[in-house]
Amino acid sequence: MSATAQPQTKPENAGLAAEVRAVARAAKDAALQLSLSTAEQRTAGLKAMAAAVREDASLILAANDKDMAAAGGLTPALKDRLKLDAKRVEAMAKGIDEVAALPDPLGQVMAEWDRPNGLHIARVRVPLGVIAIIYESRPNVTADAAVLCLRSGNAAILRGGSESVNSSSTILASLKRGLKSAGLPDAAITRLPTQDRAAVGELLKLDDLIDVVIPRGGKSLIERVAAESRIPVLKHLDGNCHTYVDRAADLAMARKIVLNAKMRRTGVCGATETLLVDRRVARTHLPPILDDLAKAGCELRGDAETRALDGRVTLANDSDWDTEYLDAIIAIKLVDGVDEAIAHINRHGSHHTEAIVTGDEAAAKKFMAEVDAGIVIHNSSTQFADGGEFGMGAEIGISTGKLHARGPVGAEQLTSYKYLVQGSGQVRP
Amino acid sequence: MSATAQPQTKPENAGLAAEVRAVARAAKDAALQLSLSTAEQRTAGLKAMAAAVREDASLILAANDKDMAAAGGLTPALKDRLKLDAKRVEAMAKGIDEVAALPDPLGQVMAEWDRPNGLHIARVRVPLGVIAIIYESRPNVTADAAVLCLRSGNAAILRGGSESVNSSSTILASLKRGLKSAGLPDAAITRLPTQDRAAVGELLKLDDLIDVVIPRGGKSLIERVAAESRIPVLKHLDGNCHTYVDRAADLAMARKIVLNAKMRRTGVCGATETLLVDRRVARTHLPPILDDLAKAGCELRGDAETRALDGRVTLANDSDWDTEYLDAIIAIKLVDGVDEAIAHINRHGSHHTEAIVTGDEAAAKKFMAEVDAGIVIHNSSTQFADGGEFGMGAEIGISTGKLHARGPVGAEQLTSYKYLVQGSGQVRP
Repeated sequence: MSATAQPQTKPENAGLAAEVRAVARAAKDAALQLSLSTAEQRTAGLKAMAAAVREDASLILAANDKDMAAAGGLTPALKDRLKLDAKRVEAMAKGIDEVAALPDPLGQVMAEWDRPNGLHIARVRVPLGVIAIIYESRPNVTADAAVLCLRSGNAAILRGGSESVNSSSTILASLKRGLKSAGLPDAAITRLPTQDRAAVGELLKLDDLIDVVIPRGGKSLIERVAAESRIPVLKHLDGNCHTYVDRAADLAMARKIVLNAKMRRTGVCGATETLLVDRRVARTHLPPILDDLAKAGCELRGDAETRALDGRVTLANDSDWDTEYLDAIIAIKLVDGVDEAIAHINRHGSHHTEAIVTGDEAAAKKFMAEVDAGIVIHNSSTQFADGGEFGMGAEIGISTGKLHARGPVGAEQLTSYKYLVQGSGQVRP
Repeated sequence: MSATAQPQTKPENAGLAAEVRAVARAAKDAALQLSLSTAEQRTAGLKAMAAAVREDASLILAANDKDMAAAGGLTPALKDRLKLDAKRVEAMAKGIDEVAALPDPLGQVMAEWDRPNGLHIARVRVPLGVIAIIYESRPNVTADAAVLCLRSGNAAILRGGSESVNSSSTILASLKRGLKSAGLPDAAITRLPTQDRAAVGELLKLDDLIDVVIPRGGKSLIERVAAESRIPVLKHLDGNCHTYVDRAADLAMARKIVLNAKMRRTGVCGATETLLVDRRVARTHLPPILDDLAKAGCELRGDAETRALDGRVTLANDSDWDTEYLDAIIAIKLVDGVDEAIAHINRHGSHHTEAIVTGDEAAAKKFMAEVDAGIVIHNSSTQFADGGEFGMGAEIGISTGKLHARGPVGAEQLTSYKYLVQGSGQVRP
């Protein structure tokens, strides 16, 4: 988790380092207070946060206007992520309401048992402590991250992108008002004192104060955080997702699912990037599926066989099988049934979300068991890979690692546990 | 998880790198087969392993004699860890029997629910994949690690200390015979081809083949692994454990517990290193507790107050509060009740195991809630910090981190999960 040669603080950054440490120290103190708060207090805080966001909607939109005015250099996709309107602010408030309505995870007895010597052992859910979340342009991540941390009793240190600094700090001020009105510590949700990149470097050194770092954004951000951090990182890497159309797939269902999985939104991590089709049904199933995709504006890149079947397909090269396009492009390959589909996915996939369309229960069972991914789906769209769609209220992201949390990360995934052992004077022989 | 500047393979190590990669590749293939094996097969494999260890007892002891003959330079404590006798080999076999009798964790549905759109979501326990375990002199770790990995469906790559190489490889051969007789893949439990330290460096680079690294041993081993590894590490760091004797402690119980917590075995990570005593009962409780410890041969190091109360106490310095002695030495400090005890522990403890002795339920409840440790114990000995004592059959160690696993790491803690989503043609709006 730590590097052999640690980056040292440069003398000119000593003041910055002290400032960042003070923020983290305050967050750690707040985390202790939060861990002792009641579920009712946390729920009241969340409800007050939703109300404050609604009350402050016009302030938030005005701050967002400032960010948008300064966003001249951004791509249209990034501008769309940055942009807030009345509907998006209301969706943010509604998301907070949903998290407020979720069962509180803390104090839950996950397991308990008695030992022959009379010791009673209970495994009880507790917060992780202090969570740092480093994200990019979407200002609503400020609310998602803060409320999931509060629901799970963690203090949050937020560091959003510079392009959303006005929106994010205005949203944060509303959230803090909600916190305060429920008697919860102000420092339970906080942000870095500056947008200076060096501040993130200082933050990533504080393994005595911060328990987990969650980077949410592009691959380069995540890799930078993973490389620099002395603190454990919950990574959300790429989603190179597949949909496999089996020989026993219902054609109408396969068409509907593939079109949605690829084209509903192409920029989300659960979008399908590669289509695998069972060679036995290529002649019947592939042309209508490709028609749908082409009509929706999707570029088709396939292996030689699919190209031979359909002239619109251009030849894919080896790197296509490993590419997360996040765009209206799909790679297409014929396979010899479920076994070859599984082998292709386990070799090229990113362990995110994988789907099979089939009416054959045995093939589905095999696919679900053998595909190595956080989410495996039978007869539905990979675009359901989302904490909200899973019923978690919101998500911080989709974890592609196997340790701690896999798949959507909601409030429950932001907890740890401790063992409480009750004795009556036992000593160990 | 990875360092900014990665260690490169030196040209002279290219052959070694290829050899290590081949071992890891075989382990990954075996892991896939294991993940598809049945609980019955894994149980049969474990039972056959226990039988093979018993059959091979004399071979194992002969190999251990060789290791002991070469162990001239080791300290008595390390020699004791290395030494096997008939009783210890039988204990090893019995430990395997216990793990064989544990419920199999794989395939367990941890949670399942239906969504309004008809999707059925299940969170199901799966293996982590390939686990590398790097340990020091105790040859029985070979069996503990291998059987816990098999129970949880993981392939294990073992790398024991050079001083136990004959014992460990003989034990491994017995375990492999057991595996094979149950039709499980030979490469499911394997070891590095050489004791060359460079081989460990090569292993720690293989984040495409290995899912987790568990270092088990001294602080320097663990820090080296954490610093070098590109693979996620489950750390088992030091156990700076405390026992707090509260004003409402029963004196007889406190004496029995403190003596056991410190002196039963001083070299285990659950041994108490600092005794905290409520100032209000220092005059009545401290002298008899210190009598017991002194009679058992324990060195006493205390703050000025405890020294004033008892002439046998030498003055502790600041570093004593942060030291894991793993020896017959105890640090002693008076505190102003449960709040100061909690503050001292949260500042100086290592989040391992902490105990309170008290008859006051409110004080106990406060201590259990506010002490930040994997295991918190009321009215019993910190030496119960052990997977076997918790009923887990065996343990790979005690995790002091908060991510993934905290406290004793048994078979269940060596698992991950995946989400299985069952649809009937749903697409996301």
